[in-house]
Amino acid sequence: MKGSIDINVDLGEGFGRYRLGEDEALLPWVTSANIACGYHAGDPQVMGRAVVLAKTHKVAVGAHPGLPDLLGFGRREMHVSSSDVYHMTVYQVGALLAFTRAHQVRLHHVKPHGALYNMAERDPALAEALAQAVVDIDPTLVLYALAGGLLAKAGREQGLTVAEEVFADRTYQADGKLTPRTNPQAVITDPAEAVAQVLTMIKEGVVETLDGGKHPINADTVCLHGDHPHAPALAQALRRRLQAEGIIVKPVGEVR
Amino acid sequence: MKGSIDINVDLGEGFGRYRLGEDEALLPWVTSANIACGYHAGDPQVMGRAVVLAKTHKVAVGAHPGLPDLLGFGRREMHVSSSDVYHMTVYQVGALLAFTRAHQVRLHHVKPHGALYNMAERDPALAEALAQAVVDIDPTLVLYALAGGLLAKAGREQGLTVAEEVFADRTYQADGKLTPRTNPQAVITDPAEAVAQVLTMIKEGVVETLDGGKHPINADTVCLHGDHPHAPALAQALRRRLQAEGIIVKPVGEVR
Amino acid sequence: MKGSIDINVDLGEGFGRYRLGEDEALLPWVTSANIACGYHAGDPQVMGRAVVLAKTHKVAVGAHPGLPDLLGFGRREMHVSSSDVYHMTVYQVGALLAFTRAHQVRLHHVKPHGALYNMAERDPALAEALAQAVVDIDPTLVLYALAGGLLAKAGREQGLTVAEEVFADRTYQADGKLTPRTNPQAVITDPAEAVAQVLTMIKEGVVETLDGGKHPINADTVCLHGDHPHAPALAQALRRRLQAEGIIVKPVGEVR
Amino acid sequence: MKGSIDINVDLGEGFGRYRLGEDEALLPWVTSANIACGYHAGDPQVMGRAVVLAKTHKVAVGAHPGLPDLLGFGRREMHVSSSDVYHMTVYQVGALLAFTRAHQVRLHHVKPHGALYNMAERDPALAEALAQAVVDIDPTLVLYALAGGLLAKAGREQGLTVAEEVFADRTYQADGKLTPRTNPQAVITDPAEAVAQVLTMIKEGVVETLDGGKHPINADTVCLHGDHPHAPALAQALRRRLQAEGIIVKPVGEVR
Repeated sequence: MKGSIDINVDLGEGFGRYRLGEDEALLPWVTSANIACGYHAGDPQVMGRAVVLAKTHKVAVGAHPGLPDLLGFGRREMHVSSSDVYHMTVYQVGALLAFTRAHQVRLHHVKPHGALYNMAERDPALAEALAQAVVDIDPTLVLYALAGGLLAKAGREQGLTVAEEVFADRTYQADGKLTPRTNPQAVITDPAEAVAQVLTMIKEGVVETLDGGKHPINADTVCLHGDHPHAPALAQALRRRLQAEGIIVKPVGEVR
Repeated sequence: MKGSIDINVDLGEGFGRYRLGEDEALLPWVTSANIACGYHAGDPQVMGRAVVLAKTHKVAVGAHPGLPDLLGFGRREMHVSSSDVYHMTVYQVGALLAFTRAHQVRLHHVKPHGALYNMAERDPALAEALAQAVVDIDPTLVLYALAGGLLAKAGREQGLTVAEEVFADRTYQADGKLTPRTNPQAVITDPAEAVAQVLTMIKEGVVETLDGGKHPINADTVCLHGDHPHAPALAQALRRRLQAEGIIVKPVGEVR
Repeated sequence: MKGSIDINVDLGEGFGRYRLGEDEALLPWVTSANIACGYHAGDPQVMGRAVVLAKTHKVAVGAHPGLPDLLGFGRREMHVSSSDVYHMTVYQVGALLAFTRAHQVRLHHVKPHGALYNMAERDPALAEALAQAVVDIDPTLVLYALAGGLLAKAGREQGLTVAEEVFADRTYQADGKLTPRTNPQAVITDPAEAVAQVLTMIKEGVVETLDGGKHPINADTVCLHGDHPHAPALAQALRRRLQAEGIIVKPVGEVR
Repeated sequence: MKGSIDINVDLGEGFGRYRLGEDEALLPWVTSANIACGYHAGDPQVMGRAVVLAKTHKVAVGAHPGLPDLLGFGRREMHVSSSDVYHMTVYQVGALLAFTRAHQVRLHHVKPHGALYNMAERDPALAEALAQAVVDIDPTLVLYALAGGLLAKAGREQGLTVAEEVFADRTYQADGKLTPRTNPQAVITDPAEAVAQVLTMIKEGVVETLDGGKHPINADTVCLHGDHPHAPALAQALRRRLQAEGIIVKPVGEVR
């Protein structure tokens, strides 16, 4: 059984006059935040506010770089090269790094967003480019990556601390991979069930898969989706249950 | 008479397939480069290449933040707030800072581009916001600003090292201000004349104005425009003349 | 007393995943809609849906071109040339025109948005460029413009039908101009007062100004702001009162 | 043997201060031009100038819609839906249509650009969406599409006049498809060889494939690439040879 876990959530997904998600509602229950960097969402004002919000709630600040596709919210895959991925990651992480300096907090981690996250799990060259960008900016940054996946592997090979990420409200297939959203059973809508899945991951190191079996999984950080109406309720339930079980909730790599 | 001066030029003004200027042609003759940061020009690949180019030529690397207007190349004024200016500067300088880390060179300075440069000279609140952004990212950065202007003043008030900038190929008015480009006498097209103007600035601390008078001016850095066809010739002539006069050409604040 | 008036509202102000305003809530009460064209808001999917919505509610469809500034929602003035204004208007109106063809409705009018609307009221060259763009695309389009202003004049000089626009929820100054939003008295928050102001405009052809006087004004169309929480209530109250007074509510230039 | 053929070239690929290609150099030798519509290249000013250029040279004007990716010049595939393709095509074609109205020329055709062109050849739903967009705007528009491909089929099924496109400077594989650019034999660099390939297509209705065989092909229009240094020479050679052979060079569907 693991003694601690991190809960992460996306933050700062607005743009100009546009707002998205329940930014402030989730912060009391999570321990780290992934802040959009202006490519798929976010703008300089939004990023600055998000860093201040995270600081106020004592939540670890991470950069959340995405594809250059505001229209598609970074969810549409693009045939970018590994050089493109390297450079767009350096650019976006650097932009957020400057806001953490301005507000005197530490940049803690990097987690790719949406299609970039998914593409790095299928193409080792993209995973390597992404990990390389993080190392080149600051080798002490933590890389958030799908548990058991290509990006986690690439990060470790380059000497990064990797936080393996699991999902509370997504089901897993027999091979340990996430059930695609095209499958009607992909999403867990019952908060109690989502909390139970996380607890099994932490206590037993496995996830119950859709076919009824179990697959080993390492959970360093749990991803919550801030744009769902039930997100605050789930966040609160998860946090309380973890504390009731004596599991410490804190950012990966931080001593508490 | 000043013993040394810097020569700066804009670099990395392409975008995607588009190219602009004579990036490589000028680098042997200058001592610092202002690299576009993706708002008015530049993209992550272009920025990475520009940093490598500057490093190869041992030229000091600066960030060149501009207004978010690729279509207008950052030359159209926009009614942005001082908070907008602060945040867009933090964002862009941070993005370039990450590329300097990735290529293990030091980020040396910040120089605003185009309309942002001009707007900061008219509005003290914008000048202050810009200087504040630079201080908040790294107080050892040098701020490049129009000689005798508002931004230079704002930078000094916040404790920054300021490099006062003069222009080789632009004429000055009786009040020491640049002649607007709408005036047919605004631009000096004869390289010899441009070189002579810079020498007078360095040796006598004055500039000869359009009305035949002289106005005091402090020249820490000379701006050359890389997108003019005659730019390499002027750069070469200026560099050679300065060396012949025993004036050291080096980045502001650096010991040689 | 005028026998009829139009009520217009902005529509289709979302972008990608982002939503804005109460698009559908206002449509039952208005007679024309100004659809954003992708520069300050709107994207092709949003534009298509907005045209369908307007068609469903039998509301006249107008193009709502703005400055190329999604981040600033087209509300930040930019120093664009009259040629820029001409071309950006042709581009955006054309884009919307294609959606009206695809959904087999008529493109009825053009109303500039935000800073573009304001800039055309101060600079006759911009007003003329805007009117020229409309004429060049289709001289039967109605131009919506501030009552008594420069754009209305430019439109008439070029032979366009002009709909002079008044505001229900904004106060007017002694010279007949809108009170700037920097003035705390700029906005009328009481729906009853807003309705009364419109009735006085229609019945008496004047507006009561902040100094207690009256200024002549011609009201062809009333602008409602869909992004205010009280907008649907005001729209409904205005529509009902106008009908109770026997004033026909219909798009400018259309026979009913 | 066909009695006539069209030669098309891309036009208006600049953006803001950026220029690309040899726009004017090719126009005397071609009969139709595909004008970028602001998504992968082009801006309103550039589009207006391109329409004027085409009009001056009496060249048929076509819209050249692409993916929303200026950074990648529309050459990077994006996982867009068929609804996305439909709407982005309506938007862009509409924008160009307005410029043809403003300059009183007829919009003659639509040819998708780059990755959008390629994606429509692999996915029937995207091909159908693209053809549907063209029909919905104006069913008399000619659809330019790869000879023998999916988009040509989709266009004919929806009643459009289709111009099947062949390439002068690209080799073909045994199955009649273009040799991918990853193959070193993909491009024909010898202008004489490129001209010969086109003549064989017109006279014999076949293309000689890389394996030495022949594959039937229907050539309604030949694509020349304006951004190659040798493009004007090839265009001139092709035009002269076709005239020498008595083959009429004119836009598809136009009587001469």
